[in-house]
Amino acid sequence: MDGKANGAKLRGKIAGPTNPMVTPILTDLYQFTMAYAYWKAGKHNERAVFDLYFRKNPFGGEYTVFAGLEECIRFIANFKFSEEEISFIQESLPPTCEDGFYDYLRGIDCSDVEVYAIPEGSVVFPKVPLMRVEGPVAVVQLLETPYVNLINYASLVATNAARHRFVAGKSKLLLEFGLRRAQGPDGGISASKYCYLGGFDATSNVAAGRLFGIPLRGTHSHAFVSSFMSPDEIVEKSLRRYDGSSVCEDFVSLVQMWLNKIKWSNLLRGIFGETNQSELAAFTSYALAFPGNFLALVDTYDVMRSGVPNFCAVALALNEMGYKAVGIRLDSGDLAYLSCEARKFFISVEKEFGVSGFGKTNITASNDLNEETLDALNKQGHEVDAYGIGTYLVTCYAQAALGCVFKLVEINNQPRIKLSEDVTKVSIPCKKRSFRLYGKEGYPLVDIMTGENEPPPKTGERILCRHPFNESKRAYVVPQRVEELLKCFWPGSPDKEREELLPLKDIRDRCIHQLEQMRPDHMRRLNPTPYKVSVSAKLYDFIHFLWLNEAPVGELQ
Amino acid sequence: MDGKANGAKLRGKIAGPTNPMVTPILTDLYQFTMAYAYWKAGKHNERAVFDLYFRKNPFGGEYTVFAGLEECIRFIANFKFSEEEISFIQESLPPTCEDGFYDYLRGIDCSDVEVYAIPEGSVVFPKVPLMRVEGPVAVVQLLETPYVNLINYASLVATNAARHRFVAGKSKLLLEFGLRRAQGPDGGISASKYCYLGGFDATSNVAAGRLFGIPLRGTHSHAFVSSFMSPDEIVEKSLRRYDGSSVCEDFVSLVQMWLNKIKWSNLLRGIFGETNQSELAAFTSYALAFPGNFLALVDTYDVMRSGVPNFCAVALALNEMGYKAVGIRLDSGDLAYLSCEARKFFISVEKEFGVSGFGKTNITASNDLNEETLDALNKQGHEVDAYGIGTYLVTCYAQAALGCVFKLVEINNQPRIKLSEDVTKVSIPCKKRSFRLYGKEGYPLVDIMTGENEPPPKTGERILCRHPFNESKRAYVVPQRVEELLKCFWPGSPDKEREELLPLKDIRDRCIHQLEQMRPDHMRRLNPTPYKVSVSAKLYDFIHFLWLNEAPVGELQ
Repeated sequence: MDGKANGAKLRGKIAGPTNPMVTPILTDLYQFTMAYAYWKAGKHNERAVFDLYFRKNPFGGEYTVFAGLEECIRFIANFKFSEEEISFIQESLPPTCEDGFYDYLRGIDCSDVEVYAIPEGSVVFPKVPLMRVEGPVAVVQLLETPYVNLINYASLVATNAARHRFVAGKSKLLLEFGLRRAQGPDGGISASKYCYLGGFDATSNVAAGRLFGIPLRGTHSHAFVSSFMSPDEIVEKSLRRYDGSSVCEDFVSLVQMWLNKIKWSNLLRGIFGETNQSELAAFTSYALAFPGNFLALVDTYDVMRSGVPNFCAVALALNEMGYKAVGIRLDSGDLAYLSCEARKFFISVEKEFGVSGFGKTNITASNDLNEETLDALNKQGHEVDAYGIGTYLVTCYAQAALGCVFKLVEINNQPRIKLSEDVTKVSIPCKKRSFRLYGKEGYPLVDIMTGENEPPPKTGERILCRHPFNESKRAYVVPQRVEELLKCFWPGSPDKEREELLPLKDIRDRCIHQLEQMRPDHMRRLNPTPYKVSVSAKLYDFIHFLWLNEAPVGELQ
Repeated sequence: MDGKANGAKLRGKIAGPTNPMVTPILTDLYQFTMAYAYWKAGKHNERAVFDLYFRKNPFGGEYTVFAGLEECIRFIANFKFSEEEISFIQESLPPTCEDGFYDYLRGIDCSDVEVYAIPEGSVVFPKVPLMRVEGPVAVVQLLETPYVNLINYASLVATNAARHRFVAGKSKLLLEFGLRRAQGPDGGISASKYCYLGGFDATSNVAAGRLFGIPLRGTHSHAFVSSFMSPDEIVEKSLRRYDGSSVCEDFVSLVQMWLNKIKWSNLLRGIFGETNQSELAAFTSYALAFPGNFLALVDTYDVMRSGVPNFCAVALALNEMGYKAVGIRLDSGDLAYLSCEARKFFISVEKEFGVSGFGKTNITASNDLNEETLDALNKQGHEVDAYGIGTYLVTCYAQAALGCVFKLVEINNQPRIKLSEDVTKVSIPCKKRSFRLYGKEGYPLVDIMTGENEPPPKTGERILCRHPFNESKRAYVVPQRVEELLKCFWPGSPDKEREELLPLKDIRDRCIHQLEQMRPDHMRRLNPTPYKVSVSAKLYDFIHFLWLNEAPVGELQ
């Protein structure tokens, strides 16, 4: 089974959560009232097992990317109440609560808790536990809210990023530009982290770049363009050649010369008015500051009548000085049409002035992009090389929440079930193991949950996989490979054997690899095939025994 | 004009942002590339004015609650790069950038920046600046991303809370239960703060309670109920009377006795099977821990056949001991029907056992509530006293982002305009003042923007209000009261005269008061009337002069 060779090892101290606001009181009050009631009943140390899972894949899809695990492990590894927090809890509970409880809270850490989880960045499915958390019931209960908080959004936005990558295609550069529209500062930082994990290439968010080593991208905004009035205001006009061999004393005039060449060339077929002078000044200034990284936002006034010709004038002047301009960004209008027009213009410039490669000048598109608009661009045909995506990506506009839950499945070795009139909300009881079974073609076929003490499925052996709640849905499988999904990430101490917390880049690689490994019909946007999730025959029987045992018998009147 | 009497005063040091991750590098990379380009062009100290505003009210409504201002002021008052941040910026920019720029960044603070804003908690409208930020162009540009981030979600979720309050009605208790589903840890903390601001009564989020003094609420979950097996496991069974006069040595038996009384009374008309024993044990334990605050989640097994009778048995036993049970929580099923059935049962218990007030036992409802479900409950008729609202509230599921923007409107005393083919995206140029004009009935009639140096509108004087972009839309108004909207919250130093940052409770009061002051047709859920936003005749003429000046003239082919 995968992960054993390079798996659990002895390791050292784990850093705290990225956001210092993630402390043990970032939880719901009822976790403390329950902890008190457990403590008062002498029940707080009963050993309990909770499963963290979700019930439905987001965005109408049939897969989810699991993310947020590292933050959960960092949280648990540093779980300790401060005296100030204890005082606040004491103020918040009724004055009748006994002091002994606060001494109990003072002594709590997570050295008696075990966390098994699917590795972060894995492709995951409904009902299969993402994490199995075992420990004293009062302590594990306190973890519920922060764990669900840390996993829900992380997994949702990583999945959203993966879906955007799927539509955009492998060859496009995907840039996350969402900080300003994210739900709060940490919404922005988490978005940058987990969009990168889900397959984006870079972010505009400098803080996220520093925290997680994500590549950074960005050039200038419309305000920069409109902050200039005309090229006359540029004082420092000199530019050294790329190879350092000489200096052009008046780069502004060089740009003007190229603009005139463009104007009187065949390119503009006589339709050329004046380009906007404040835009020309802004582009020239930006090129003087970043001659090796010139990328211009070309839609402040008019893309084809002003932005693109101005960009080309500056780019050709840079070219004469030995620099290669990066490209343009389009932030409004008909992106399919404008990208094609700009591409044609670049190709004409390449021909007209013999600047080799100019036709391939990079075109970045932004402005309210999402899965649907990317799909529409693909259908229309376009010439965009890179996408800057913000609002719809980071706020998960199409579905703003994932419904992860944290359910008690066993206490004191007694399996527990949560019933509901809605069968999709019934929990799967027992401390469980889960396995992913792979078929001949290398695709994952089905996930199966078993009781903790059942013999695990074996490669080449026939096994019955049952739908947990629908008795008619079952299938035999002979797996070509069996992968145990839950691995030990927190054995109660940072010093004991546990799975390594990998660098973000490696988690991203795992995610991209696992997504590529899926059977394509599970991944398509329209009517994807559900991936099968099952339980063993033994677990199936036990679930239904327990269900009948707990459910009241109705009486029709 | 309002706010002058108790307005600007000299004040002291301002604390940093609530989230320590909000530092000057929580911004887009392009703010630094632009800052470098401004610096390189010797343009960085040019005095610029930016407006922060949004273009469209969220959730299909016609109003927005402005929130997030205090965090912006805390940010600016403590704006300073650390050496570590400077090094990181240096690594992130091309190596050709000159060292002098990093010395410049080292020296930056916001002592030369002025922030005028509408007071937090105000009802606000599209296009009218929420904040006007003036200062050296490179510095103010750096503020764009964090400011838009801090305002966007805060205002969105405060508005969402206000809308939920509007549907629920004044008399209901509204509890924010969203931490686990929020977009990241800070999404959760911000949600709790701004939902309270928008009119909620309490939160479940302990960290938010500590940070902002918001009242806390919470009892227990389904896991607590299913963690018990039967009343036999309760070891400590004694309960002291409320008045301390005596002790009941076996409260478990007292509960059992009341359960039998209920069972054999007229209440259950012979349809009574056994209630769930694990639930009964959980309720009894919870009551022993919190005899004065007994509130039970009654839907783990079956609301009317198990949860409510079990609750009543425990509540009646508590009543015998001098305590008053608080109530029940329903977290699934048909909330309208179940709340009515539970109410009937409580009223019958009151009659049957002569327990005065029992019929009024509190009923809290939760489970995926939103504006629509609250509205549907109202239409069906229900007996819910309090709502716990999570996912849809805090993630703003119906519309997950507000589109605040930050636009350059003036630089070096030169007004600037941002054009767009989409007229709603054209910015309103010039450093401006804004006023709210009130009519005879006390309602706000219209907001009007004027140039900075125009004479302000006066009470009792006729003034022409023009739609900024539609020449045919204009109206004369004789205001009965004129309120200047933008007030000085950051004069460049915490020591200079500025508006006070009020406690959250006061901002909440302002919000509730302003919402009540609006004309009802602006506030209704279905087809609300848009509130009018206008410019002075002089500003109108100037906008259109500038527009024609900047826009290229097309040529049809």
